[in-house]
Amino acid sequence: MDQPEVIDPPENEAALYAQRLGLVRAALEAQDEAGLKALLEPLHPADIADILEQIGRGERARFFGLLGDDLDADVLSELDESVREEIVATLPSAQVAEAVAELETDDVVDFIENLEDEEQAEAILDALEDADRVAVERALSYPEYSAGRLMQREVVMAPEHWTVGEAIDYLRASDDLPEQFYHLILVDPKLRPTAYVTLGKMLAHPRSVALSAITEESFRTFDVTQDEGDVAYAFNQYHLISAPVVDEDERLVGVITIDDAMNVLDEEHEEDILRLAGVDAEGSLADKVAATVRRRFPWLFVNLVTSVLASLVIAQFEDVIAQIVALAVLMPIVASMGGNAGTQALTVAVRALATKDLTGANVWRVIRREVLVGLVNGLAFAVIMGIVGVIWFGSPMLGAVIGVAMVVNLLVAGLAGVGVPVLLEKAGIDPALASGAFVTTVTDVVGFFAFLGLAAMWLL
Amino acid sequence: MDQPEVIDPPENEAALYAQRLGLVRAALEAQDEAGLKALLEPLHPADIADILEQIGRGERARFFGLLGDDLDADVLSELDESVREEIVATLPSAQVAEAVAELETDDVVDFIENLEDEEQAEAILDALEDADRVAVERALSYPEYSAGRLMQREVVMAPEHWTVGEAIDYLRASDDLPEQFYHLILVDPKLRPTAYVTLGKMLAHPRSVALSAITEESFRTFDVTQDEGDVAYAFNQYHLISAPVVDEDERLVGVITIDDAMNVLDEEHEEDILRLAGVDAEGSLADKVAATVRRRFPWLFVNLVTSVLASLVIAQFEDVIAQIVALAVLMPIVASMGGNAGTQALTVAVRALATKDLTGANVWRVIRREVLVGLVNGLAFAVIMGIVGVIWFGSPMLGAVIGVAMVVNLLVAGLAGVGVPVLLEKAGIDPALASGAFVTTVTDVVGFFAFLGLAAMWLL
Repeated sequence: MDQPEVIDPPENEAALYAQRLGLVRAALEAQDEAGLKALLEPLHPADIADILEQIGRGERARFFGLLGDDLDADVLSELDESVREEIVATLPSAQVAEAVAELETDDVVDFIENLEDEEQAEAILDALEDADRVAVERALSYPEYSAGRLMQREVVMAPEHWTVGEAIDYLRASDDLPEQFYHLILVDPKLRPTAYVTLGKMLAHPRSVALSAITEESFRTFDVTQDEGDVAYAFNQYHLISAPVVDEDERLVGVITIDDAMNVLDEEHEEDILRLAGVDAEGSLADKVAATVRRRFPWLFVNLVTSVLASLVIAQFEDVIAQIVALAVLMPIVASMGGNAGTQALTVAVRALATKDLTGANVWRVIRREVLVGLVNGLAFAVIMGIVGVIWFGSPMLGAVIGVAMVVNLLVAGLAGVGVPVLLEKAGIDPALASGAFVTTVTDVVGFFAFLGLAAMWLL
Repeated sequence: MDQPEVIDPPENEAALYAQRLGLVRAALEAQDEAGLKALLEPLHPADIADILEQIGRGERARFFGLLGDDLDADVLSELDESVREEIVATLPSAQVAEAVAELETDDVVDFIENLEDEEQAEAILDALEDADRVAVERALSYPEYSAGRLMQREVVMAPEHWTVGEAIDYLRASDDLPEQFYHLILVDPKLRPTAYVTLGKMLAHPRSVALSAITEESFRTFDVTQDEGDVAYAFNQYHLISAPVVDEDERLVGVITIDDAMNVLDEEHEEDILRLAGVDAEGSLADKVAATVRRRFPWLFVNLVTSVLASLVIAQFEDVIAQIVALAVLMPIVASMGGNAGTQALTVAVRALATKDLTGANVWRVIRREVLVGLVNGLAFAVIMGIVGVIWFGSPMLGAVIGVAMVVNLLVAGLAGVGVPVLLEKAGIDPALASGAFVTTVTDVVGFFAFLGLAAMWLL
């Protein structure tokens, strides 16, 4: 069998990943513990987690059967939640607790808050050192998705009046500095952060320079209860690298760094994409069928109700359809075009709301634009479909009906595409989650009604 | 009129933004140059850019009429492309060039590569200092969306054999260190990067410690021609903060930092969301109607073609519909349910492909799962719709027809939802862009065909 050493540098990364995965599976199949360990040894925990997510349930069980004693908590913390749950459920609580206790406190918080099994959470808390347990419990006392949950509690701070030299001496004497930090935070005597200095500036200035003379303009603090989404937005908007977190007395309680913010942004994007498609987030490819059905069914049910609504509109025109069956052939086109135009407009609007680009100041301008876009596209497609109607069914009036219905529906699609998300946002409902159902209901109902209604008036 | 000083700290940020925007508009209206400057003075360039994006075209012209001489290049570089283009087109080339010349070189590159006006790009290049112009031209020589375009050329490096003390002395003596840097990169005599040291570690260790003794495990380099998407993926996967970029001879040519990677990730997400909704990316809320129509029309046209295809299927069953008009009432439900289930599956698949979670190793397992999910959901909705069919139309056979058609279509939706994006990816086509059209064509055609075909067999 090939050994990992013979792998050439990745000309094609996908091929390399596939090759590596094949070797791991072969080692699992052969129960080759030494071979498996040799394969995993050079890998980053995130890559090992990816492998675990891609192999099957049975292979995962065998994996931990072979490596159980060497459980790496970093791998656990990189795993998708559903796979993590599955693995953690099969391992003894004590073993999981022992592994997790080695993580940094913010990773422990992330681990525990996603754990469904209360007892296992308790076991992990008990296995932590006293100071760490207090820190984790403190973090868990802040609201979910708050800055307090996101921050790390290890902060590097100094009095405002220190010099570069004093700060360097202090750092050299410290023996528990965080793995990663980018600023020295200056605090007043009440531990309230007032400014920060980049490590680069500290290194570039002589020992005698006062820290207060080389602080950064970008300094801003976050409140411990602030929503993590707002924090991530601010990191992105103001190009922050790290920022202090303060409690209600303005005292320094932690630090959020850009990698945490990047994670939040990533998750929020993912959630938006999935919600726009009617999939409740937090799923993973490794989920079981039952879990996936539970996540998809509600939205499909909503869609069923809305399409029955549209069918009720069609039912009002059964007589018309019975006389002109061509209407049944053409009516899905009008509804489908409206639905697509509406989805375009609403997706742009939902994203613009998320990035705070769509506000009260420009909402009317944006609505006007979307309606105009609907009008122009509607006219273009009215002409095309009018011609299709004439050629296909030899009826200019039928062409006119579908053309006018198209213009009406695309206009309405533009209006609803912006209006619905904006109204939902105002009502405190996530527009990514609910806009699609509303907008397509509107375009289906309007599309069928306009098309069949005009047909009843002009063609009978 | 209110003055900005009286604004309370943001209890509600949205209200604060709205208030600020109102004040800016009032100042523009009143041609109050001093008032406008006072309002803008405390703002971050990104916030000023947001204001410019939200006011109207006429207001923007007035804005630069009032502030033209104080053009801030940082504001320009924060603007959406379309608004930037609009503003740059109205200003004298020399004035723009002068402002842009003050940006950091990677921002100049970003500015120039997005400029449609070649002459203006030349004017900006000419206005740069010689060293900067060479750097910018060099960067522009790398492929678009490559690491070479993304990186900053200002690097902080040191010979491998230096001590902490030597490095600090060197940094103190340097007078052109980059604004932000997080690592000191160690290079061999041929300027090939071999490791890096965090600034935190440098500050925490005594002067006598060798840099080579305190290097980081996370060290990895990127090739200058590597795709920026792969770079961003690696930053996210391996929790990188900064990474050296090397040329074909492995020599250090630049550094990519996490904020650049975060931007790329952000843009790719945005692009995916919009493409999934059939909107070609790179648009902005401030785009003109014509530009928006151009961006939306092609996808709507594709949708028209696919829905005409579906209509051709319906046309095969005109006789059946003429005899049982209820079919026309119910058929959009089957198609719509299939379309929605397909969209759910394809969105999950497109995202999983983007995050490299869906690979050759698990594609069959994922397809099997999606098909099973389609089957289970299909059976559930078959029962519901069967009952609806009986109650509404009093026909058990009609209920059976819609039920079976529903199962078939949801099954196919699951299959196509994964299969289409995977095949498109294999063919080198962006699955986010094209999957939707293919999948809904499949579910429309299958939905109408199954429903009307079964009706023809069982009901006539």
